[in-house]
Amino acid sequence: MPESTPVKRTLGVCYYPEHWPEAQWAQDAARMAETGLTWVRIGEFAWSRMEPKPGQTDFGWLDRAIDTLGAHGLKVVLGTPTATPPRWVVEKYPDMLALDKDGRVRGFGSRRHYCFSHRGYRAECARIVGLLAERYGANRFVAAWQTDNEYGCHDTTLSYSPPALAAFRDWLAKKYPSPQLLNQAWGNVFWSMEYESFDEVGLPNLTVTEPNPSHVMDFRRFASDEVVAFNRIQTEIIRKFSAAPIAHNYMGRVTDFDHFAVGKDLDIASWDSYPLGFLSDRIEVTPEHKLHFMRQGDPDNQAFHHDLYRAVGRGRWWIMEQQPGPVNWAPYNPDPLPGMARLWAWEAFAHGAETVSYFRWRQAPFAQEQMHAGLLRPDSVAAPALAEAAQVARELTGMPDAATGKAEVALVFDYASAWAWKTQPQGRDFDYFRLVTSVYRGLRGLGLNIDIIAPDTADLSPWKLVLIPGLATLSGPLAAALAAFGGQALFGPRTNAKTADFAIPVPLPPNLPGLDCTVARVESLPPDAQVPLVGGGAIIHWHEVLEGTADVVLSSASGAPVIMRSGGLSYIGGWLDPVALAQVLRAHCSQLGIPVTEMPYGLRRRDSATHRFLFNYNAAPVHFEGITIAGAGVHWRPL
Amino acid sequence: MPESTPVKRTLGVCYYPEHWPEAQWAQDAARMAETGLTWVRIGEFAWSRMEPKPGQTDFGWLDRAIDTLGAHGLKVVLGTPTATPPRWVVEKYPDMLALDKDGRVRGFGSRRHYCFSHRGYRAECARIVGLLAERYGANRFVAAWQTDNEYGCHDTTLSYSPPALAAFRDWLAKKYPSPQLLNQAWGNVFWSMEYESFDEVGLPNLTVTEPNPSHVMDFRRFASDEVVAFNRIQTEIIRKFSAAPIAHNYMGRVTDFDHFAVGKDLDIASWDSYPLGFLSDRIEVTPEHKLHFMRQGDPDNQAFHHDLYRAVGRGRWWIMEQQPGPVNWAPYNPDPLPGMARLWAWEAFAHGAETVSYFRWRQAPFAQEQMHAGLLRPDSVAAPALAEAAQVARELTGMPDAATGKAEVALVFDYASAWAWKTQPQGRDFDYFRLVTSVYRGLRGLGLNIDIIAPDTADLSPWKLVLIPGLATLSGPLAAALAAFGGQALFGPRTNAKTADFAIPVPLPPNLPGLDCTVARVESLPPDAQVPLVGGGAIIHWHEVLEGTADVVLSSASGAPVIMRSGGLSYIGGWLDPVALAQVLRAHCSQLGIPVTEMPYGLRRRDSATHRFLFNYNAAPVHFEGITIAGAGVHWRPL
Amino acid sequence: MPESTPVKRTLGVCYYPEHWPEAQWAQDAARMAETGLTWVRIGEFAWSRMEPKPGQTDFGWLDRAIDTLGAHGLKVVLGTPTATPPRWVVEKYPDMLALDKDGRVRGFGSRRHYCFSHRGYRAECARIVGLLAERYGANRFVAAWQTDNEYGCHDTTLSYSPPALAAFRDWLAKKYPSPQLLNQAWGNVFWSMEYESFDEVGLPNLTVTEPNPSHVMDFRRFASDEVVAFNRIQTEIIRKFSAAPIAHNYMGRVTDFDHFAVGKDLDIASWDSYPLGFLSDRIEVTPEHKLHFMRQGDPDNQAFHHDLYRAVGRGRWWIMEQQPGPVNWAPYNPDPLPGMARLWAWEAFAHGAETVSYFRWRQAPFAQEQMHAGLLRPDSVAAPALAEAAQVARELTGMPDAATGKAEVALVFDYASAWAWKTQPQGRDFDYFRLVTSVYRGLRGLGLNIDIIAPDTADLSPWKLVLIPGLATLSGPLAAALAAFGGQALFGPRTNAKTADFAIPVPLPPNLPGLDCTVARVESLPPDAQVPLVGGGAIIHWHEVLEGTADVVLSSASGAPVIMRSGGLSYIGGWLDPVALAQVLRAHCSQLGIPVTEMPYGLRRRDSATHRFLFNYNAAPVHFEGITIAGAGVHWRPL
Repeated sequence: MPESTPVKRTLGVCYYPEHWPEAQWAQDAARMAETGLTWVRIGEFAWSRMEPKPGQTDFGWLDRAIDTLGAHGLKVVLGTPTATPPRWVVEKYPDMLALDKDGRVRGFGSRRHYCFSHRGYRAECARIVGLLAERYGANRFVAAWQTDNEYGCHDTTLSYSPPALAAFRDWLAKKYPSPQLLNQAWGNVFWSMEYESFDEVGLPNLTVTEPNPSHVMDFRRFASDEVVAFNRIQTEIIRKFSAAPIAHNYMGRVTDFDHFAVGKDLDIASWDSYPLGFLSDRIEVTPEHKLHFMRQGDPDNQAFHHDLYRAVGRGRWWIMEQQPGPVNWAPYNPDPLPGMARLWAWEAFAHGAETVSYFRWRQAPFAQEQMHAGLLRPDSVAAPALAEAAQVARELTGMPDAATGKAEVALVFDYASAWAWKTQPQGRDFDYFRLVTSVYRGLRGLGLNIDIIAPDTADLSPWKLVLIPGLATLSGPLAAALAAFGGQALFGPRTNAKTADFAIPVPLPPNLPGLDCTVARVESLPPDAQVPLVGGGAIIHWHEVLEGTADVVLSSASGAPVIMRSGGLSYIGGWLDPVALAQVLRAHCSQLGIPVTEMPYGLRRRDSATHRFLFNYNAAPVHFEGITIAGAGVHWRPL
Repeated sequence: MPESTPVKRTLGVCYYPEHWPEAQWAQDAARMAETGLTWVRIGEFAWSRMEPKPGQTDFGWLDRAIDTLGAHGLKVVLGTPTATPPRWVVEKYPDMLALDKDGRVRGFGSRRHYCFSHRGYRAECARIVGLLAERYGANRFVAAWQTDNEYGCHDTTLSYSPPALAAFRDWLAKKYPSPQLLNQAWGNVFWSMEYESFDEVGLPNLTVTEPNPSHVMDFRRFASDEVVAFNRIQTEIIRKFSAAPIAHNYMGRVTDFDHFAVGKDLDIASWDSYPLGFLSDRIEVTPEHKLHFMRQGDPDNQAFHHDLYRAVGRGRWWIMEQQPGPVNWAPYNPDPLPGMARLWAWEAFAHGAETVSYFRWRQAPFAQEQMHAGLLRPDSVAAPALAEAAQVARELTGMPDAATGKAEVALVFDYASAWAWKTQPQGRDFDYFRLVTSVYRGLRGLGLNIDIIAPDTADLSPWKLVLIPGLATLSGPLAAALAAFGGQALFGPRTNAKTADFAIPVPLPPNLPGLDCTVARVESLPPDAQVPLVGGGAIIHWHEVLEGTADVVLSSASGAPVIMRSGGLSYIGGWLDPVALAQVLRAHCSQLGIPVTEMPYGLRRRDSATHRFLFNYNAAPVHFEGITIAGAGVHWRPL
Repeated sequence: MPESTPVKRTLGVCYYPEHWPEAQWAQDAARMAETGLTWVRIGEFAWSRMEPKPGQTDFGWLDRAIDTLGAHGLKVVLGTPTATPPRWVVEKYPDMLALDKDGRVRGFGSRRHYCFSHRGYRAECARIVGLLAERYGANRFVAAWQTDNEYGCHDTTLSYSPPALAAFRDWLAKKYPSPQLLNQAWGNVFWSMEYESFDEVGLPNLTVTEPNPSHVMDFRRFASDEVVAFNRIQTEIIRKFSAAPIAHNYMGRVTDFDHFAVGKDLDIASWDSYPLGFLSDRIEVTPEHKLHFMRQGDPDNQAFHHDLYRAVGRGRWWIMEQQPGPVNWAPYNPDPLPGMARLWAWEAFAHGAETVSYFRWRQAPFAQEQMHAGLLRPDSVAAPALAEAAQVARELTGMPDAATGKAEVALVFDYASAWAWKTQPQGRDFDYFRLVTSVYRGLRGLGLNIDIIAPDTADLSPWKLVLIPGLATLSGPLAAALAAFGGQALFGPRTNAKTADFAIPVPLPPNLPGLDCTVARVESLPPDAQVPLVGGGAIIHWHEVLEGTADVVLSSASGAPVIMRSGGLSYIGGWLDPVALAQVLRAHCSQLGIPVTEMPYGLRRRDSATHRFLFNYNAAPVHFEGITIAGAGVHWRPL
């Protein structure tokens, strides 16, 4: 990752003028400005107001809303409304609705009710985006764009509809010179699954037992490509009319499409950060950990996404939606501790965010998200987060613009590997995101700055230590970069374990030039099983049997090799528990001259180019290196 | 609730003459009479015998069955057979079958296979009910009627079929002057969900993520109205031909339709009481509690339903089906302790039941319920409950007719609130029935008589203390009654938290005139989280942040207001655990001069107008106020 | 079971020549021979290679593969490929696909994608089997046949498709003289479920609540009959052309069709033994037990299947697929302990297996089972099991041919009872397989040889003790055999509890001539509930109340009869926990002069006609009767 340039840090908010009486807009805008906000995101769900009937548009209200906001010194992020096609669009294209894996239609009545592959709907989107871009492309207040909203949210990347099937067959016909070569690539001889024509290929659902994993992987690659293509239609149109940067707001822990690939068509990556919702809903931690951080969120999950989207955005990234209070959608929805709406914002800035935009301005008292907090209550009284946002705004004025802090450690994140191990977990607890974040947690526990990097990163020279856990298939660029790398690369488990066709490679994995280490076989472990290691800690979840002549640098208690190493290449034959992982990371950092610090539980650190930040995710104060950081508190000092 | 008049208490039994050889009927009837039974319910599943083929009726067997029962001095409750349309009805109207939420047909082969909205089926029901009413309306032995059987059982209130959709659209068109006003009421602008015509509105299933809660609530109101309309067709026909009272047998913990609304068309409310089945299947209690009461049933669940159906029946209520031994349908089906078939009956009488009717006379050795016990075994030998029923019959002769006991405490139960919080729990553990019964448990634990009252109760003067937990929307009549109330009203949590359109009201809830207390925000809590309170106990499941100038009468350990009060109005900002609830209730009762008694675990008390009853739900004896009540024992003494 | 004749014990392997370059076949064959293998099973998934297009066959490769194997002294088991119809077959008969219980199609893309009832598919199978039989029936290397593959695996016995419905109606019309007699047999009067014609009968799925259990049972009987008929088509054709024995490879714990009935058309029973997969996936044991045996498999589950398939095969049985390393399909897939691939083989031989065939030769690096270990790794390096197989082969040469060991104890296993209690568990934890295996575990814990016998066994004279738990309906032959039996028969719980029509018999069960003992009523118990017994132990899961004049030989702590006995007949009124079961079995064995030994945890014993074998399923060594058996070790000595 190149040295970043210092950025101006700003705050924003999501706003829905169409939800409120026009008479209230000016007052709202004034209050936003007074709070110290810079950006207002609008428009992304308002198609039925922009175009109430086919061909009958109404942009007057939007003109006035943008003018009102602009008149108060606010900059607008204008969203395209394609995540919520109105009823008449669905009437026009009844087959635009996705089908779920069980074949059930995913109908009108909420949002994201479309299949990415439907050509008619794509044309409809191009039309409405064109109208918006043409009208607002040169608007002086429209300073950024957002395409659609949270691609893939609500499990919408994969559709099992007839249009998806047709497009998938076309995609296969482009990828494979012949059905015979597809058969060969997938190994379809296995259960007489061979095809004579691409039109015989179905979608990999509703099979008697599991479908061919190569079939599933190609369907997942196809589905990801469809998201990229869908998004690109919009960015190409917007760019014809506007020079403002374009973003998309990715949703946390959505991995069903390649965010890096979508990101290549965008100027800014942004993500929607709901720390309490995510902790309640989608993080594998112990019940005690969930309870301890119930009102704060997991101490590492936000940072991981920050670092990920910094990579996706090639340095430019935002939080487009920041949780300000309880949300409505998690199994349990507690209230954040006082201070967390400030802490979360500062943590994003510490990781290099340009903008943190709270979702939403005022809690809507109606419809699906009526229980989702805003900066204002439904009665327009300030919710607790408003003062915290204002505090952050004031604090920002006292801080210099700053570049992203330098990291000596890089961690590869690869969407295709997430698909690979969803397709073939081989053990119920093997999940790629969980694996990578477990490594990330280990690094953060040592107080390190971390860069997350793409799986096709071609230059590793900025870093001393690179971790590559669970990368299903090593890309050509990364392999070349590794060959030229002067630091330490730490692979495994399951790294380079699949060919591009999703077969087991022969020679067996990891098959790394320069490292004579072979995974002879693998096993998945049930929750309470462990393989204890020399020196403490254990392998959990996933264990590999290693062979080869490389040095054994860590062994199991029974004497089997667990980490093997030659020069700058090391391979870990298993999923390390936190104790073992910390030891391994400490040893590598020590050898590479990377200073580490044992961070207290719940305390996390991040250095920007100019400051060292500490974030206390605990409710109680923490004493650390001579200072006391209050519960839910933030501390910073110049470097 | 008006003072009730003393009623004659009687026993009954459910009988299916069509299941047994005609030669056996007289013997059965003689034995019923000998046991001391008064009532026999028959007919409710016998459509295929009443009308084997379209238009070809056969009532001869039913005539003879009724005559046989009557000749032995038994009175007949005649059920309409509309819960089990024969195969030929379904052939005639294939689209009368309901569809489930996933769009799957709910076919022929068990029971309740119909959609309430199907007009053809309604006509068919009117026809068969008309034939029955005409033939037996003046029969001297038919002394009561039952419509259908257990409306809503097996999750049958809500149907997602095309006839349901058509009827829903009609219902909406009657409720809303225009689609635009529907859009406004529901807040459909939120995600571009706006409709141009009522014919664009779908059913709130198979959406990508959750549908609009206002949409769901209207669908639930509609579905409840359909049950009311379906039932009314039958009561209107029966009343043309018969002066006998009409009942329906509601199923325990079915809340998907408004029992009060159906009850307005009936003379008697009755419910089907399966204490062991319910404990195994549908009560949120600890595993230890389930194990302790496995053979007795939950000590409060029956009483709750008794008090509920006394309200639904406006004072007149029965148990139409009383569990006599193991049932067949719960996850686990233990045998009741000896004595429970007696205890359950006496507890019903203590709560004012007119009749307790055991289900069923003889265990049927065939078909779905062959493992469901009866008073007789399949081989006609007496099952244990027969002697207990006979004992109750003997004991009844020694007791005076008695009016329902007076209660100083009322508890509001509202079906629409059950729908509201199913529609929007906002936390996985928030369930209205569970909340209300937790309050009921607290009151029973203090030995109190309780009246359950409808949410539109217009006069609260009979009571000193009224509890109104979780009532989503305060009705006009109840608001007026509260304004005139001289006692103490205890609201919350979530009371008056929704408008009639299912939006958050502004001003914010509870918005009670005379009580300056506002719910600033709310949060749901995961299972192990608590907000500890001053003086012990804690808030669990649901916590609200309160503001206002009303007196703080209970605070959290951290000093936040938990109960606020002005004069006779108090609001509780959370779901109290049993310890906190008991303290609050004791304090209120003490202030109001309502005497309370700490009831031992598993011992419960109820006063009729003439007697004090004690019910020992434990297997072991309990010593209480100088007397010893045997395990599964009942004690009574004159007041 | 008749005295068996000594058999030659051999090893085999499953091989897929179509997966590998033809150039590799000879080398593979040589290595198989060198390992000491005798048999190679091939062909069972290769339809798309035998017949790539309709009518266009290609058997050349198969000719050469068989020749190559034969040339190396190997014998071939040739599988019919009907478990994997190619795509073009499905194109020809789109309605040949099964539908699942929810009505979803079970499509092409994996295996077993057919409905047993589809007449067109049956014809297609007859055709391809005919081609194979004609071509290879006299082939000197083809020394055995296998029909299809794992009937019923992936829940494929029951199909809810239109062809299944049509065939079911025909089946009913053959079974019942009239719809009226069907109505009577099923008790359809119960909920007006009566039919006027067989064409009105539907499949027992998608009903509102549970369907009539008699309906379900007839559907299950029909479905089992369809498997038998499907298989018989193949055996009849093969026998026209070949004198080689025919086998089918049954899958562990598949009970949806009657293996005895299918077995009558076969010469050899074989089963597919995956000890670690089964332990992870489908055995009800404690978590501690699962963890302890995670790399070894449950110590009794293999033996149970061995004894079962010895009965199904009328003495002749194989393991057709033996797990050699980690599998790919269980929730967790650990690596076996070194030694287990040997132990499992020897245990099979000790129970009388003729052949143990490892699955598979070389791990396939592609398609669904790429993570399933073989004797070779994907890179052709030996996996650990290869050496263990070679060791077994060497050890076999030192052992005499041996007959199956004699057992003094028999245990009845009845597939129809498995259907009965799946249809009507009456308590969530009641499962027939679990019940019978719990008795089997108890017997094995006493070091006994056990014969599993069919439910229509007509001669019990070979045994001293016969156990008949949970047999839903006592067959005529078995009843006659019991009348003539001189030993002890131990019935219950739930034995003879249903009529042939699946009703409760009157007189009540068990209704055994000579034993005055009646099950007055039954109850199912939740997990933590127990009925403690005199002398220790308890009843769990299922408890019956017994009446009668027979001797009470075991009572509950509260004094109720638990086991009643007259002469050689005893009835157990409940599901005994291991402590109680062991006491009861010890007492019976003691009285019958059957010597027992308390086996240490994880150590199991089996006597062949010539040797006593000990199998240590523990990882640690066990000392027993003066010898030490290593972890995962086998010990044998001549008797």
